Amino acid sequence: MVLASALQWIIPIAGLTAVIFAGYLARDVLRRDTGTDAMRDVASTIYEGAVAFIRRQYTTIGLLALGAAVIIGIVIYLVETPDVADVPDLAGAPIAIMTAIAFLVGAACSMASGIIGMFISVKSNVRTAAAARRSLVEAVQVAMRGGAVSGFLVVALSLLGVWGIFTAYSTFVGNVTVAQAPFLIVGFGFGASFVALFAQLGGGIYTKAADVGSDLVGKVEAGIPEDDPRNAGVIADLVGDNVGDCAGRGADLFESTAAENIGAMILGVGVFAIATAAGWPNPEAWIFFPLVVRGFGLLATIVAIFFVRGREDENPMNMLNRGYWVTTILSVVALAFVTYVMMSTGTTGAGANGIPTWIWFFGCGVVGLATSVAFVYITQYYTAGSFRPVREIAEASKTGPATNIISGTAVGFETTLVTALSIGLALFLSHWLGSQAFANDPKSAAIGGIFGTAVATMGMLMTTAYILAMDTFGPITDNAGGIAQFSRSEASAREITDRLDAVGNTTKALTKGYAIASASLAAFLLFSAYISKVNLIQTNRGGELLTSINMADVSVFIAALIGAMLVYFFSSLAIRAVGTTAQSIIVEVRRQFREMPGIMDYTQRPDYARVVDITTRAALRQMVLPGVVAVATPIIVGVLLGAEAVAGLLMVGTIAGVLLATVLNNGGGAWDNAKKYIESGHLLDADGNVLGKGTMAHAAAVVGDTVGDPFKDTAGPSLHVLVKLLATITLVLAPLFIR
Amino acid sequence: MVLASALQWIIPIAGLTAVIFAGYLARDVLRRDTGTDAMRDVASTIYEGAVAFIRRQYTTIGLLALGAAVIIGIVIYLVETPDVADVPDLAGAPIAIMTAIAFLVGAACSMASGIIGMFISVKSNVRTAAAARRSLVEAVQVAMRGGAVSGFLVVALSLLGVWGIFTAYSTFVGNVTVAQAPFLIVGFGFGASFVALFAQLGGGIYTKAADVGSDLVGKVEAGIPEDDPRNAGVIADLVGDNVGDCAGRGADLFESTAAENIGAMILGVGVFAIATAAGWPNPEAWIFFPLVVRGFGLLATIVAIFFVRGREDENPMNMLNRGYWVTTILSVVALAFVTYVMMSTGTTGAGANGIPTWIWFFGCGVVGLATSVAFVYITQYYTAGSFRPVREIAEASKTGPATNIISGTAVGFETTLVTALSIGLALFLSHWLGSQAFANDPKSAAIGGIFGTAVATMGMLMTTAYILAMDTFGPITDNAGGIAQFSRSEASAREITDRLDAVGNTTKALTKGYAIASASLAAFLLFSAYISKVNLIQTNRGGELLTSINMADVSVFIAALIGAMLVYFFSSLAIRAVGTTAQSIIVEVRRQFREMPGIMDYTQRPDYARVVDITTRAALRQMVLPGVVAVATPIIVGVLLGAEAVAGLLMVGTIAGVLLATVLNNGGGAWDNAKKYIESGHLLDADGNVLGKGTMAHAAAVVGDTVGDPFKDTAGPSLHVLVKLLATITLVLAPLFIR
Repeated sequence: MVLASALQWIIPIAGLTAVIFAGYLARDVLRRDTGTDAMRDVASTIYEGAVAFIRRQYTTIGLLALGAAVIIGIVIYLVETPDVADVPDLAGAPIAIMTAIAFLVGAACSMASGIIGMFISVKSNVRTAAAARRSLVEAVQVAMRGGAVSGFLVVALSLLGVWGIFTAYSTFVGNVTVAQAPFLIVGFGFGASFVALFAQLGGGIYTKAADVGSDLVGKVEAGIPEDDPRNAGVIADLVGDNVGDCAGRGADLFESTAAENIGAMILGVGVFAIATAAGWPNPEAWIFFPLVVRGFGLLATIVAIFFVRGREDENPMNMLNRGYWVTTILSVVALAFVTYVMMSTGTTGAGANGIPTWIWFFGCGVVGLATSVAFVYITQYYTAGSFRPVREIAEASKTGPATNIISGTAVGFETTLVTALSIGLALFLSHWLGSQAFANDPKSAAIGGIFGTAVATMGMLMTTAYILAMDTFGPITDNAGGIAQFSRSEASAREITDRLDAVGNTTKALTKGYAIASASLAAFLLFSAYISKVNLIQTNRGGELLTSINMADVSVFIAALIGAMLVYFFSSLAIRAVGTTAQSIIVEVRRQFREMPGIMDYTQRPDYARVVDITTRAALRQMVLPGVVAVATPIIVGVLLGAEAVAGLLMVGTIAGVLLATVLNNGGGAWDNAKKYIESGHLLDADGNVLGKGTMAHAAAVVGDTVGDPFKDTAGPSLHVLVKLLATITLVLAPLFIR
Repeated sequence: MVLASALQWIIPIAGLTAVIFAGYLARDVLRRDTGTDAMRDVASTIYEGAVAFIRRQYTTIGLLALGAAVIIGIVIYLVETPDVADVPDLAGAPIAIMTAIAFLVGAACSMASGIIGMFISVKSNVRTAAAARRSLVEAVQVAMRGGAVSGFLVVALSLLGVWGIFTAYSTFVGNVTVAQAPFLIVGFGFGASFVALFAQLGGGIYTKAADVGSDLVGKVEAGIPEDDPRNAGVIADLVGDNVGDCAGRGADLFESTAAENIGAMILGVGVFAIATAAGWPNPEAWIFFPLVVRGFGLLATIVAIFFVRGREDENPMNMLNRGYWVTTILSVVALAFVTYVMMSTGTTGAGANGIPTWIWFFGCGVVGLATSVAFVYITQYYTAGSFRPVREIAEASKTGPATNIISGTAVGFETTLVTALSIGLALFLSHWLGSQAFANDPKSAAIGGIFGTAVATMGMLMTTAYILAMDTFGPITDNAGGIAQFSRSEASAREITDRLDAVGNTTKALTKGYAIASASLAAFLLFSAYISKVNLIQTNRGGELLTSINMADVSVFIAALIGAMLVYFFSSLAIRAVGTTAQSIIVEVRRQFREMPGIMDYTQRPDYARVVDITTRAALRQMVLPGVVAVATPIIVGVLLGAEAVAGLLMVGTIAGVLLATVLNNGGGAWDNAKKYIESGHLLDADGNVLGKGTMAHAAAVVGDTVGDPFKDTAGPSLHVLVKLLATITLVLAPLFIR
C-alpha cells in the first residue's frame, strides 16, 4: 500500500511540527508579564542558581558521556567480530563507530531537551506567579504551556533522533538493511539512559537535599513558613524544583520513549521476517510502526493543549484532565487509523477467527492506553487525600512519628499489589491479542504475542508529551508559589498559586505512576529485545539459539540475586546522598541564623548563594558513585557469568526495580498527602476536634513527609532510569557477554 | 561399605539422645531457685498470658492445619493420576493419604517443639532472674540451658520426624523405593511451613504490637521506664518476647531444617541414580547423607553446651561464642568423617584431578559452615554499636527523627550488598566444587553441582541447634530483665540481667542473619528440587523435560512479577497488623492511666490481663489474612499459568523475599542499636558534650527503634518462613500445575 509507505513521513513532520509548536509556546510564555520587581528579583536568583547547577552538571555528564562513548567504541571494536556482529560485513570498526555515534547523539538529544525544557520552566515560574495576580485560568495556561515546551521537546527530539539515526544508518551505510538498522541504533537508547541516570540522580539529590535541609531548619527549628525569605536554604529549594523534578523527569521520559521505541523496532524485525515470507504488502511498515504511532501521539497532544481552559471558579485539575482525555481519545482514533493502514496483511490475513490482524494489534494499543489511564487512577487512590490509604496514615500520626512511618511503609508496600496485577494483566492481554493476530502459525503467533506487548507499550507512550507537560506544570507552579510567598505577593494571588501547587503535586505523582507503568511494560519488551539480539548473534555464529533462558542454571540464579540487590544498593546510595547533603545544608543554615542575627527581623539578607553552592557541589559529587555502580554491575556480571546470566539480572533487576520504585514513589506521595490532609483540617480527635497544624499529629506527619521526600523524588525516579539503563546497556554490550 | 550403612543409625540415635539431653537440661533448669515472691508473682502472670495465647493460637493453627490436610488430600487424590504420580502404582488415594499424613506429622512435630520450647523458656526466665542475684555465670548457664531445650527439641523432632516418615514410607509401603520416598514426604515440609507461617505471624504481631504499644505510652508519653509495673501493657510485652521471639523462631528453624533436608534428599536421588549406574558401594547413602550430617551436628552441639562457662568478670558473649566455635569445629571434623565414609565411590572415583569425590563434597560442606560464620560477622558489623552503620544512624539522629529514618533505610538497603555477594559466592563455590566431584561426565557434573549446593546447606544447618539455643537465650534474658525490673530486684542483679539482655539482643540479631543465610542457600536447593519433581512427573508422562525454565515466556514473567509483589504485599499486611494492634493497645493503656489515677503512685494495680487479652485477640485475627494470601498466591498462579510459571514465581519470590527480609532485619537491628549507642553515651555534639537520654537525638533514635520493631521482629522473620513455604507448597502441589 502506498499509504503505509507514505505514513512514514509523518515521523519527521510530526516531530518538526512539535518542535515548532514548542517554539511558539515558548514565545507565548516568554512575552508575558513578569510581575513586580520583587518577583523578578527572586526569579532571577532562582534562574542563576539553576543555570549554574545545570551548567556544571551537564558539563560533568557530557564528559562522562564522552569517556563512555570512547570506551564503548573500543569494546565494540574488540568484540564485534564477524561471527557475532549484527551485520557481519561491518564487524569491527564500522559497528564500533556507529554505536559510539548513536550513543553520543542519544546523549546530546537528551541533554538538549533537558536544558531547553529547564530553561523555559525557570522562565515560566515568575510569569505564572504574575498571572496569578490576575486570573486563575491564565496562570494555569502559562504553567501548562511552559510545561508543554518541555513535553514537546523531549518527545520530539527523541522521535527525531531515533528516526534520524535509523534513517541515516539504513540509507547511507552500505550493506545495512532496514531489518538490521534497529540493532545498530541501540547505542542511542544507551546514550539517553546514561544521561538520564546522572541527570535524575544529580537533580534528585539536589532537590530533595535542599528541600529536606531547609524545611528541617526553617519549619521545624526556626518556626518560619515554607519558602520564607529568611531561610538561607529557600533559593536552593526553589532551584531544586527545576533541576530535579523538571530536568530529571524530562531526561527519564526521553529515555523511556527512545529505549522502548528502539526495543519495539527490534521486535518489529521479527514480524518483518514473517511479513516478508508471507508476501504481505509493506513488510517494512512493521519496523516503522512504533515511530509513526508516536508521531500521531505528538499531533494529538498539540490539539489537546488548546483544550486546557475553563472557568475561573473551576478546579484547575479539571482543565488539565480535559486535555488529557482529548489526548487519549485522539490517540485511540489515530491508533485505529495507523494499525489499519500499516498492519494490513493483504489477502493472506492471519488473524484468529477471521478477524483481521490489524484489529488484534489495535486492541493491544488500546490495552496500553487503558493501562496508563488505570495507573493515573491507581496513583490517585493511593496518594490523594480523600481515600483510605492517606487517611490511614493521617490517623496513625495521632500516636506519633513512629506509627506514621510504620503505617506509610505498609501503604507503600501495599501499592505493589495493584501495580503488579495491572501490569500482569496488561502483559497477558496484549500478548494474547498479539498471538491471535498471527494465530495461523504457532511460531508466528509467539512472535506476534511479544510484538503485541510492544504495541501496547507504544500505545501507552502516545500520551507521553501531554503527561510530561502536566508533570512540568508541577515544579513551575511550585516555584510560582515560592516566588509569590517570597516576594510577599497579594493574598488573592497566593491563594491561586496555592491551588495550583496542590494540583501540581497531584500531576507530579501521576507522572510517576505513568513512568512506572511504562517502565514495567517496557521491561518485558526490552528483555525480549535483548534475547532477540543475543539470538541474532548466535545465528551468525551458527550456535544454539537462546530462545530459552534457563533459570535453573546457577549462574542465572546468582545474577538474578545480584540484579535484585543492585536495586536496593543503588537506592541506598541515592537516599544516603540526600541525607548527608541535607545535613550539611542544615549545618550551614543554622550557622547563618546564629551568626547573622538580623536575618530573623528581615534586616539582614541570608547568604542564599552559599547554600546553593554547597548543594550543587554535594549533589554533583554524590551522583557519581550510584551512577557508576549501576553502569558497572551488569557489565561485570556479563563478563564473569555470561549472556544467559545477564538475562537473569535483567529480568529480576527490572521486576525488583519497578516494585521498589512503586513502593518509594507511592509511599512518599501518601506521606506527603497525609500531611496535607492534616493541614487542611480533616483529621479529628476522639471528641471531634480538628487536629491541624501545630499538633503532635501534624509534627508526626511532617516527619513522614520528610522521609518520603528522598524516596519519591530521588530514589524512586532514579530507579525508573536504572531499569531501562540495564536494558539498554545489555543490548549494546551483548556481544561482550557471549562466550 | 558396612560402615556407611551403619551410619544411618546415627540418625535415630542422635535424635533420641538430643531429646533425652533436652529433658536433662529442662530438669536442671526447672529444679533451680525461683527467687522472691514478687518474682514468682510476675513470672506466673507472664506464664499465664503466654499459655493462654499459645493455647488459642495453636488451637487455631491446628484447625487450619487439619482443614488444609483434608484439602491437600482431596486435591492430590484428584491430580495424582498414574501418568503424573511420583510412584505410578500408588496414584490417587494412597499418595493422597500419604501426603496428608506427612503434612499432619510435620505440623504436629512443629507445634510440639514450639509449645514445649516455649513452656521451658517461660520457666527459665524467673530462674535466670533469680540466678542473677548470685552469679553472672550461673545466670548465663540457666538462660542458655533453657534456650538449648528449645534448640534441641526443634532440631531433634525435625530430624526424627523426617527420618521416621521417610523410613515408614520406604519400608512399610509396598512398591516405594528409597529413591521414591523423598518425593512422598514433601508434605512433611509443607506441614512444618504451614505451622511456622502462622506461628511466626501470630507471635510476631503479638510481640511487636505489645512492645510498640506499651513503649509509646509508657516511655514516651508517661515518662516511666521500660518494664515498669505501672504500665498496663508491660505484661503483654513480656509475654510477647516468649510467644514471638521464642516460639516463632523455633517454628521458623524447624521448618528450615525439615524443608531443606527433604529438598537435599530429593537432589540426593539424582546422585543415587548416578551411583547406582556406576556401581558405587552404597548408593543409598547419598539420599541418607543429609540426615546423617544433621545427626552429627546435634551431637556436636550437645558437647558444646558444656563449654558455655567462664569467669564472673568475663563478657557473657565470649562464653556463648566459645560454645559456638566448639560446635563449628566439631561439625567440620564430623563432616570430614561422614563425607569420607558415605561418599566413597570405590575404585571408579569420579573427582577432577584425581582428587576423591568425598573431598570435593567436604569442601561444599565447609563452604556452608563458613557462610554461616560469615553471616554472623556481617550481621554484627551492620547491627552492632561500634561500627560505621550504627554510628551513621546515631549521627543522623541529631537532626531529628526524619533523618534518622532516612539514614536507617539507607543502611538497611545497603546490607543487601554483602548478603547477595556472600550468598552468590557460596552458591558459586559449592556448585563448582560439587561439579568437580563428578567431573568425568558432564551430565553427572551438572547434578553434582546442584547437589554441592545441597551439601553446603546441610553443612550450614549442622549448627542450627546451637544457634537456636543462643536465640532463645535472647527472650529468656529479656524476660529476666523485665522480671528483675518489675519485682524491683537488687541493683547488682539488675546490672547482670541488663548485661545479659544486651548480649541477648546480639544473639537474636545473629540468628536472623543465620536464618536468612540458610533460607537463601536453600532457595536454590528447593528451586532445584521443584524442577526435579516436575521432571519426574514429566518423565512418567513421557513428556518433555523441564530442565530449562524459559524466562522469556510471558507467563513466567508475569508469575515472577507476582512473586516479587507477594513479598511486599505480605509484609505490608504483617506491618499494618502491628500498627493497628499497637494503636488499640495505646488507647487501652491511656484509658487505664486516665481512669485509674492511682496507677502512677503504685496505689492501684493496672489491669494487665485486659491488655493481654486485647493483644491476643488482635494478633490471632490479624495473622489469618497474610497467611492465607501466602498460601493461596502460588496455588492460584500455578493453576492459571502452569508449572513453568510457578518456577518463575518461586525463584523471583524467593530472591525478593530474602533481600527484603535482609533489609527489614538489619535495618531494624541497626535502628535498635543506634538508640542503645546513644543511651550508652557514645554520641557527642560539636562541642564534645554527650548527647544521651532525654536529648532530641535520643527521642529521634527511639522513633527509629520503634519503626524497626515490626520490621525486624514481625515482617522480616515471617518472610523467612514465606520463602520456604513457597518452595514446599509448590513441591507438594506440582502435579496440580502441570497441564
